Amino acid sequence: MGSESNNLEFLKEIGLGSTNIGSFINGQWKANGSSVTSVNPSTNQTIATVTEATVADYEEGLQACSEAAKIWMTIPAPKRGEIVRQIGDALRAKLDPLGRLVSLEMGKIIAEGIGEVQEIIDMCDYAVGLSRQLNGSIIPSERPDHMMFEVWNPLGIVGVITAFNFPCAVLGWNACIALVCGNCVVWKGAPTTPLITIAVTKLISEVLEKNKLPGAIFTSFCGGADIGEAISKDTRIPLVSFTGSSKVGSIVQKTVTERFGKCLLELSGNNAIIVMDDADIKLAVRSIFFAAVGTAGQRCTTCRRLYLHESIYTNVLDQLAGLYKQVKIGNPLEKGILVGPLHTRSSVENFKKGIAAIKSQAWKILTGGTVLESEGNFVQPTIVEISSDAAVVKEELFAPVLYVMKFQNLEEAIALNNSVPQGLSSSIFTQTPNTIFKWIGPRGSDCGIVNVNIPTNGAEIGGAFGGEKATGGGREAGSDSWKQYMRRSTCTINYGSELPLAQGINFG
Amino acid sequence: MGSESNNLEFLKEIGLGSTNIGSFINGQWKANGSSVTSVNPSTNQTIATVTEATVADYEEGLQACSEAAKIWMTIPAPKRGEIVRQIGDALRAKLDPLGRLVSLEMGKIIAEGIGEVQEIIDMCDYAVGLSRQLNGSIIPSERPDHMMFEVWNPLGIVGVITAFNFPCAVLGWNACIALVCGNCVVWKGAPTTPLITIAVTKLISEVLEKNKLPGAIFTSFCGGADIGEAISKDTRIPLVSFTGSSKVGSIVQKTVTERFGKCLLELSGNNAIIVMDDADIKLAVRSIFFAAVGTAGQRCTTCRRLYLHESIYTNVLDQLAGLYKQVKIGNPLEKGILVGPLHTRSSVENFKKGIAAIKSQAWKILTGGTVLESEGNFVQPTIVEISSDAAVVKEELFAPVLYVMKFQNLEEAIALNNSVPQGLSSSIFTQTPNTIFKWIGPRGSDCGIVNVNIPTNGAEIGGAFGGEKATGGGREAGSDSWKQYMRRSTCTINYGSELPLAQGINFG
Amino acid sequence: MGSESNNLEFLKEIGLGSTNIGSFINGQWKANGSSVTSVNPSTNQTIATVTEATVADYEEGLQACSEAAKIWMTIPAPKRGEIVRQIGDALRAKLDPLGRLVSLEMGKIIAEGIGEVQEIIDMCDYAVGLSRQLNGSIIPSERPDHMMFEVWNPLGIVGVITAFNFPCAVLGWNACIALVCGNCVVWKGAPTTPLITIAVTKLISEVLEKNKLPGAIFTSFCGGADIGEAISKDTRIPLVSFTGSSKVGSIVQKTVTERFGKCLLELSGNNAIIVMDDADIKLAVRSIFFAAVGTAGQRCTTCRRLYLHESIYTNVLDQLAGLYKQVKIGNPLEKGILVGPLHTRSSVENFKKGIAAIKSQAWKILTGGTVLESEGNFVQPTIVEISSDAAVVKEELFAPVLYVMKFQNLEEAIALNNSVPQGLSSSIFTQTPNTIFKWIGPRGSDCGIVNVNIPTNGAEIGGAFGGEKATGGGREAGSDSWKQYMRRSTCTINYGSELPLAQGINFG
Amino acid sequence: MGSESNNLEFLKEIGLGSTNIGSFINGQWKANGSSVTSVNPSTNQTIATVTEATVADYEEGLQACSEAAKIWMTIPAPKRGEIVRQIGDALRAKLDPLGRLVSLEMGKIIAEGIGEVQEIIDMCDYAVGLSRQLNGSIIPSERPDHMMFEVWNPLGIVGVITAFNFPCAVLGWNACIALVCGNCVVWKGAPTTPLITIAVTKLISEVLEKNKLPGAIFTSFCGGADIGEAISKDTRIPLVSFTGSSKVGSIVQKTVTERFGKCLLELSGNNAIIVMDDADIKLAVRSIFFAAVGTAGQRCTTCRRLYLHESIYTNVLDQLAGLYKQVKIGNPLEKGILVGPLHTRSSVENFKKGIAAIKSQAWKILTGGTVLESEGNFVQPTIVEISSDAAVVKEELFAPVLYVMKFQNLEEAIALNNSVPQGLSSSIFTQTPNTIFKWIGPRGSDCGIVNVNIPTNGAEIGGAFGGEKATGGGREAGSDSWKQYMRRSTCTINYGSELPLAQGINFG
Repeated sequence: MGSESNNLEFLKEIGLGSTNIGSFINGQWKANGSSVTSVNPSTNQTIATVTEATVADYEEGLQACSEAAKIWMTIPAPKRGEIVRQIGDALRAKLDPLGRLVSLEMGKIIAEGIGEVQEIIDMCDYAVGLSRQLNGSIIPSERPDHMMFEVWNPLGIVGVITAFNFPCAVLGWNACIALVCGNCVVWKGAPTTPLITIAVTKLISEVLEKNKLPGAIFTSFCGGADIGEAISKDTRIPLVSFTGSSKVGSIVQKTVTERFGKCLLELSGNNAIIVMDDADIKLAVRSIFFAAVGTAGQRCTTCRRLYLHESIYTNVLDQLAGLYKQVKIGNPLEKGILVGPLHTRSSVENFKKGIAAIKSQAWKILTGGTVLESEGNFVQPTIVEISSDAAVVKEELFAPVLYVMKFQNLEEAIALNNSVPQGLSSSIFTQTPNTIFKWIGPRGSDCGIVNVNIPTNGAEIGGAFGGEKATGGGREAGSDSWKQYMRRSTCTINYGSELPLAQGINFG
Repeated sequence: MGSESNNLEFLKEIGLGSTNIGSFINGQWKANGSSVTSVNPSTNQTIATVTEATVADYEEGLQACSEAAKIWMTIPAPKRGEIVRQIGDALRAKLDPLGRLVSLEMGKIIAEGIGEVQEIIDMCDYAVGLSRQLNGSIIPSERPDHMMFEVWNPLGIVGVITAFNFPCAVLGWNACIALVCGNCVVWKGAPTTPLITIAVTKLISEVLEKNKLPGAIFTSFCGGADIGEAISKDTRIPLVSFTGSSKVGSIVQKTVTERFGKCLLELSGNNAIIVMDDADIKLAVRSIFFAAVGTAGQRCTTCRRLYLHESIYTNVLDQLAGLYKQVKIGNPLEKGILVGPLHTRSSVENFKKGIAAIKSQAWKILTGGTVLESEGNFVQPTIVEISSDAAVVKEELFAPVLYVMKFQNLEEAIALNNSVPQGLSSSIFTQTPNTIFKWIGPRGSDCGIVNVNIPTNGAEIGGAFGGEKATGGGREAGSDSWKQYMRRSTCTINYGSELPLAQGINFG
Repeated sequence: MGSESNNLEFLKEIGLGSTNIGSFINGQWKANGSSVTSVNPSTNQTIATVTEATVADYEEGLQACSEAAKIWMTIPAPKRGEIVRQIGDALRAKLDPLGRLVSLEMGKIIAEGIGEVQEIIDMCDYAVGLSRQLNGSIIPSERPDHMMFEVWNPLGIVGVITAFNFPCAVLGWNACIALVCGNCVVWKGAPTTPLITIAVTKLISEVLEKNKLPGAIFTSFCGGADIGEAISKDTRIPLVSFTGSSKVGSIVQKTVTERFGKCLLELSGNNAIIVMDDADIKLAVRSIFFAAVGTAGQRCTTCRRLYLHESIYTNVLDQLAGLYKQVKIGNPLEKGILVGPLHTRSSVENFKKGIAAIKSQAWKILTGGTVLESEGNFVQPTIVEISSDAAVVKEELFAPVLYVMKFQNLEEAIALNNSVPQGLSSSIFTQTPNTIFKWIGPRGSDCGIVNVNIPTNGAEIGGAFGGEKATGGGREAGSDSWKQYMRRSTCTINYGSELPLAQGINFG
Repeated sequence: MGSESNNLEFLKEIGLGSTNIGSFINGQWKANGSSVTSVNPSTNQTIATVTEATVADYEEGLQACSEAAKIWMTIPAPKRGEIVRQIGDALRAKLDPLGRLVSLEMGKIIAEGIGEVQEIIDMCDYAVGLSRQLNGSIIPSERPDHMMFEVWNPLGIVGVITAFNFPCAVLGWNACIALVCGNCVVWKGAPTTPLITIAVTKLISEVLEKNKLPGAIFTSFCGGADIGEAISKDTRIPLVSFTGSSKVGSIVQKTVTERFGKCLLELSGNNAIIVMDDADIKLAVRSIFFAAVGTAGQRCTTCRRLYLHESIYTNVLDQLAGLYKQVKIGNPLEKGILVGPLHTRSSVENFKKGIAAIKSQAWKILTGGTVLESEGNFVQPTIVEISSDAAVVKEELFAPVLYVMKFQNLEEAIALNNSVPQGLSSSIFTQTPNTIFKWIGPRGSDCGIVNVNIPTNGAEIGGAFGGEKATGGGREAGSDSWKQYMRRSTCTINYGSELPLAQGINFG
């Protein structure tokens, strides 16, 4: 396991070696693609190598998956829930090594790595209960001796394409629900986090095997754009859940909808925090700090825009700057570190380009703005004083760069919050009921996530996660998100011998 | 009012004259486009003329509508419900002349014309109650002193593009819900049914005026593809509800989703009835007859494919043929007529082409197949004996042509039902519980409407109407369809002074 | 029509004369009981006379009602909704005279009289939509080839016993829902408001007749305790909805539950308003004034207890006292009057007894406290400074007497709010989110109605109305109140040929 | 452990000894009451002794429980769900010994003993998911700047009194839901199954302890009627869930409702199976056999009445008699045994009395009818041919005695099914859709459980369990049963500065 093998013994606990096969097809580990390396973003050294899947591997996998779908969809939902419960227990037993792997391969700090794995476990626990509550409806019919049903049936296969920043939690949001709903899952993990894809798939596959179920119920690929495209085009996959940029998401959406498939999109965020003059400043500052520098600014819910009421502008900024200056950057597996590396060298290049653009437009960098000297991909968390109509403010720069702006009243602040193409997350800090209810009301934030006195990031699984506008409109995890993973039939059953028509029509 | 003026006195009752202005913009009737004629499909004579809207008219309308949206969305939902109740009463008062107009201009028989208007009235009544039930949720938070809300807010403006075959009911499905949900409505009716568009808009506008509300809350256009395209591209319209062919719907979907707007699509159907060997044959025959010849085969839910169990094949076919031979074709406003004209001359051309293709492939026309000699667009309801793998069976021919095929068992019948690109409606006739529950279950019909012992057509408003696959996936009218007309916010409110994080994460 | 006939011409419009038959039985007006007078509480003069029902009349009515129930319950719910829509329209057409009658006979001011009738109309509108949403559930079964349903069926007959203070709105809450749910209604109105009972029944009966439905679907009695007892004991009535005092309600509950019938109880309230130091004082004072003196203190939601934070105690009290001194008391039908008479002479006696008790315990009467010299039942709205542990504070004195007390912090205020046997309504005035969410949370108000910045009274129909503890626990009007008017069946249907058992049990 | 100690080693695994303390109070095992013996119904030999609780013990327990309630109710529901998840895992780890104990102490066969424990485990798994779905509602307000909420808060303490026949599953139905809803639980198990009460309590208490939560959250008593009465009268317990006979339940209900507490009653059943002429006879016979002799006729859902269509009467009866004659009666822990002992000697006396009454009225005993010679409480499963108007048919005889009757058509069969005071469970066997839907419809079975082609017993937890009429009306386990364990607040929040009133009323 490369040069860091001394510290990587824990990978064996979760079934990983120095070389690994990167796709799980028809219940077997096999892959015929090129060999890629998984790299530690703190050192840019190899953790292990992985053989990726080819399009031929994909096709073999999908054929088996299609067959498995016929079986899985007829197993009663509560029995499927029992399988998901066992998956949750398998993950719980490996919470620590899986959390460390997330931290190691993705680069987020260990508390967040553990938290991410906990989120799949929570999803499993939640989905078990849900497996007895995928309720249809019995709707009163206007016709005598008729019953009207709304029945929910499985789609068959759900494709899940995930991103590097949440290399397993997003799989959890989708797969736990998709599985209890009676669907097989086809997963393509991010190309740069193959070890997590493999480790999670192994645990799931073991549960399927133990229960003598076809392994193809969960089909998993390490691979690149060709596998993603194959999924998008595949008419055997009625639903594709895609997490990534708005740009790529738009292409996926076009491809999937052209074949009248359905998409569940979790795309770019460009999330704002508003601090009102009556805010609990201490709470606000802690929240902004977590929202802006947490995960090194690589969450889709990272706070990128900060709107401060003019009366508390300087105060908040001073306190924030103080925190930024003290924040510990380094190996995310080490205790006390709050900021790990960016995920890849190209992320660092993007950061550099972003900073260069900011400087070229003469915006003021209050703190940060440089790449750290190291073997890894470390950059300084950055605060930029900027005008709210600057073009860069409309874009998602996937790094810990926070734009700070000033406003005078609530209406202006809401308008600024809503002025970007994206619509994922948003927060306000205030202690006034009127402000709170306006913020969450018809003329308030236009985002999918609308918080009060908490950061933009850190969603709970019980709610529906997702955003509006260029964020794509999908909703995952809790609430009635499960309905997206099923098809709805409106069924009218005539159990009499007459033929009354709706709207009282007479025909013949 | 053209040459038929003697019989058209009733049009005055609903505000129509021999010339009419075809768009309602900013509370005023004005239109600067070309003048078109509305034609009676039974005679191909002009009923009246209408001035269509230009793209400039459209823009003027949308600007006013955008302003009105800010007002309408903050009016409490139950107050919006009261407006919709008054719209329902206004329609109820004009049920008869409106129904006659639908019959006259579209060509459906008067019972169906009245039934269609009744359907909007039913939708209004339903939406009134709904205006107090657009419920969000309060979801338990895992964090102390936090509450999680799921809040539903209006989208702002909903675009509704309807088709000639249901020139007002589909507006009702969309507008009644959209309005109580707090949205303004922008309606483009079918180019060939402008009088209905104008008459319905007038009644709605009068209610708005009486309540001193901006007329722009309901903005309406008679016009062609340019107006449709303007709606599709308009970023001020977050949701476009489109009814029409899969082909055009696919283009609309592409245009709307490219700008990250949402679509609600009701596209082509190609609907099958299956008759099992244990069916109530009398019930089945009556249902097939209504489903195949009703509305002259021009419903999206018209039965186009008939699968008969081999043991009852001849029996059912004989009875059907008997009915087809006796069916009265003619002026849809006359009593006793069951089949009116096709809607336009080009519909007749399509029918001819379809019949020619059937003949060229040597399929057997059991009855019908010819265009009637007349000034109007009358064709014979037609039954064709065909093989289930014939290419024409996969397509929607929008005319009263029924393809009949044979099968041996339920599995085969379901596979045949599911073998076309479209997925709107489907029915089975059987008296066996096992068959019923398999048909509505995970391996049964893949359509949005899955009936038992009733025709494919004639949906009630309490259920969700719409279909899967190339039918577009939208759901309108009842159930939780209203959610599509609102945006969902997941709101977490921290009312304490601490900052616990989800998944138990510690940060700093 | 007694000595006031000049002004009572409007009663003819709603079918009332100087003598009236007080029960509607089997579709006919007939009554064999004693003749009673309806008295105007402003003058204690007779409005008209009414013949009450005997127990024999009751029995005749119930036999017909039982037969009608078999018909009504099998009419499709949306068709029942159409009947209720027509009832709503019939009431709307008579809103003004009905509202005046409520004001005349009950004694509340005309604005409230009209408002009360509007509330039944609102209930009708609401119930129409509901008639298509009385949804059962389809629940996933753990057994293959099984479906689990939760089906809601009508109860058959619902008994409704209402009180004088809302002589028709409470009938509306119950009857509108009960009727769309498929139940016949047996109504006993208050003995002192027989004209309202008759007038409302007439309008309903006319709708039934017009639709050729059995009149016995709605069976109505003017009468006393013997009719109430007959309803309570009647095993043909699965649900009795009773509004009245906790004392009588407890007896009704005992009688009904002994025969394993169900009760829906709306009993005594003893409702508090808390004003925090951060409240909008102007809003609070207006609200307290409406809550305490509105309907002359005769609402079940009247505010009887006022807890003021010590820091704003004097301020609020001074402002309140100012309003109390100016309030216009008099004929409730006259413009500008805010306080009408108490309903009966015995209400005045109760008021006197209450004031005497207060004085005997040396509590301080700040304003009011006397009976006005007049022919009618007028008393002065009264404010009493008292200790929160005084015994009288625990009881409901059904008159405009407000007890005022002081507190120091939120926890104390909540404890005081919760310290009485009753649990109907409660309000807090505050501008702090933390206070709001604590107030509505697990350790907040223990009432069924928990308001913020509005009075204790004036509920909307969309929510569920009712209270906890000695208020009886029933919930009427909106939310899922309709479920109480139906019986729930958990149905499991095996459509296969095997017999798998739940929990995986093997037997034999 | 008495004379059977050789086989009772497994009891140690679940914390039981030869002497045991029978109450868990304030986190400690202590009891000051009399010592009672737990008896093996197969041998009437002592298994172990148990010290019961006194009323003073009860009071000590309740004081601690009241304190614990304040803590437990403010812990976020998903965190409470995590505790219930751990309880489920603790039970799962002891499934086998717990199942054996149920079989040993109650007397049901081992498959059913294991199944019963599995049912609590299923309930735990279900409740975990539910802990994130105890959703309130946000209801549209008719007033501007107002929001209406329906909030669900914990009740505080739930009392659970269970019966011998399901000595732990019924606790599971109640406690799992009550706990996630935020309530402490006070459990009184059946006096004759104290070891199960203790064993289950121990597992739960260990989970609480491990999580450093107050043990008093779960307070448990072995004891008799004095403890039951104390619970019924205790105003600290807003909800009492009682399982037992209608006779005792009626007393409990009276006591609890007199203090305006709430009851959840699961009382006597007297359940019928109807076999239509078109039934799958094989399926029907197997089902009747399980429903009538399973658990030796001691389920509340045991089939006691069998209605056979005259055309299949003899056939079904012959097949049933065949099964009855072969059924193996004996030690329920032994493989192959289908019928264990009655639970107590007094159960045997009741059986004898019942048989004597049947004989005295000259009804025909087709098979069975005698007590077996043995040290245990074994009786013969019995079939009696009887008239449907015999008085004994209206009563629940808690033993394996099946009354068989004949009918001619569906209407008659439904009337017979509904002709008893009880309304718990009911089944029909048929293959006709019309019959199925009539059976579950408004004029069908009046029971809470309405099955088709399965036995009357063997409910799944996903549905709501309970019955109508003398069965008490309670619903436990799935569906929205959780609402009974919470109190509902209708909250209206005014976040504006105006005071608009509902129903458009103007005041002052």
